[in-house]
Amino acid sequence: MKCMMIGVAGGTGSGKTTLTTRLKECFGDNLCVISYDSYYLPHTGMSYEERCALNYDHPSAFDTELFLQHLEALKNGESIACPVYDFKEHDRSNETVLISPAPIVVLEGILLLTDPRIRAYLDAKIFVDTDADVRVLRRVVRDVNKRGRTMESVIAQYLTTVKPMHEQFVEPSKRYADVIVPEGGKNAVALDLLVRRLEHHLTQALQEQEEADKAQ
Amino acid sequence: MKCMMIGVAGGTGSGKTTLTTRLKECFGDNLCVISYDSYYLPHTGMSYEERCALNYDHPSAFDTELFLQHLEALKNGESIACPVYDFKEHDRSNETVLISPAPIVVLEGILLLTDPRIRAYLDAKIFVDTDADVRVLRRVVRDVNKRGRTMESVIAQYLTTVKPMHEQFVEPSKRYADVIVPEGGKNAVALDLLVRRLEHHLTQALQEQEEADKAQ
Repeated sequence: MKCMMIGVAGGTGSGKTTLTTRLKECFGDNLCVISYDSYYLPHTGMSYEERCALNYDHPSAFDTELFLQHLEALKNGESIACPVYDFKEHDRSNETVLISPAPIVVLEGILLLTDPRIRAYLDAKIFVDTDADVRVLRRVVRDVNKRGRTMESVIAQYLTTVKPMHEQFVEPSKRYADVIVPEGGKNAVALDLLVRRLEHHLTQALQEQEEADKAQ
Repeated sequence: MKCMMIGVAGGTGSGKTTLTTRLKECFGDNLCVISYDSYYLPHTGMSYEERCALNYDHPSAFDTELFLQHLEALKNGESIACPVYDFKEHDRSNETVLISPAPIVVLEGILLLTDPRIRAYLDAKIFVDTDADVRVLRRVVRDVNKRGRTMESVIAQYLTTVKPMHEQFVEPSKRYADVIVPEGGKNAVALDLLVRRLEHHLTQALQEQEEADKAQ
């Protein structure tokens, strides 16, 4: 079935995940989500301390080659073995998750729009835009409550790498967006626009599939 | 029939009119367009020179009361007599244009999102966002070629009122947008999103109307 690929980018805490979750709720098995974060490079041979000190907000932190291979596979209707990243160990785990192809593929990640090879796959490029002060507060709450980090370490990482990388890579990549969505998943009007567009694709893709099946 | 009101705001030369024209092409008589520019206040008793010197980029230049009355009328399925502004004379003309209600109403104007009473009518608030250098070039070409002004007068007006008013009123009103569309009417992906959403509304409105007719 013809696949529509949507990219959801935007800074840390912007509301990408909420938006993506809402879309998933709407389309169920007709939509698969892939987080670019799953494609952090493995750090074989590095100590935990070295891995902690890496810059995870730079485009070079990602295994873009593997990500592109997987996008190509999904586009061709093939399943992928998506890597699982261990955020506590700061390393790729030995596990993978099988992701089946779907008529709607949502890719989500801070730096998704920075690479022209990724952009070439996207039928719609969404940038979720939220004020930096709101974003940083969300990040502090998430990392302290859900990832067991101290507030001091979250703030240090934010000021040392997250913020400068945002300004150097994430913010300028907004230029490539087809649509900018303020506030992300809590923006009902924007969500509605996306849902209707994806519904239209789904109806079309199902019809084309049906006709192709008949023709055989 | 249930009416959906869309507001298209954004700076001078941002691509509002192109976007609006594309939507009109898609929906024909099911869509009516109202330009907020038509609602510039009349300037009774002022000389031509005085009218030329007015600040047309300030929210107070508009007859917002009349505009709101007309929005209410359209929402209630009533026709309006839309004023016609004479941009050469810098004054409201004696003519009006009859605008019939339609299931989709698109309001277009630089300062559309600045007034909370207007925003309250909008089911979707779109802000067309284009770089200031691109916008000013479009404005110079339009005003010199189509409005018979000299390049010097266009530049003087731009620097004296258009730019400061943009920074004071237009740019901050982006905060109220549900969706920000880079480049306006030339943005095919964003246009497609809007079209599918409006198609959905139209189908629903027609169905509801049919059911209401049957019930009578």
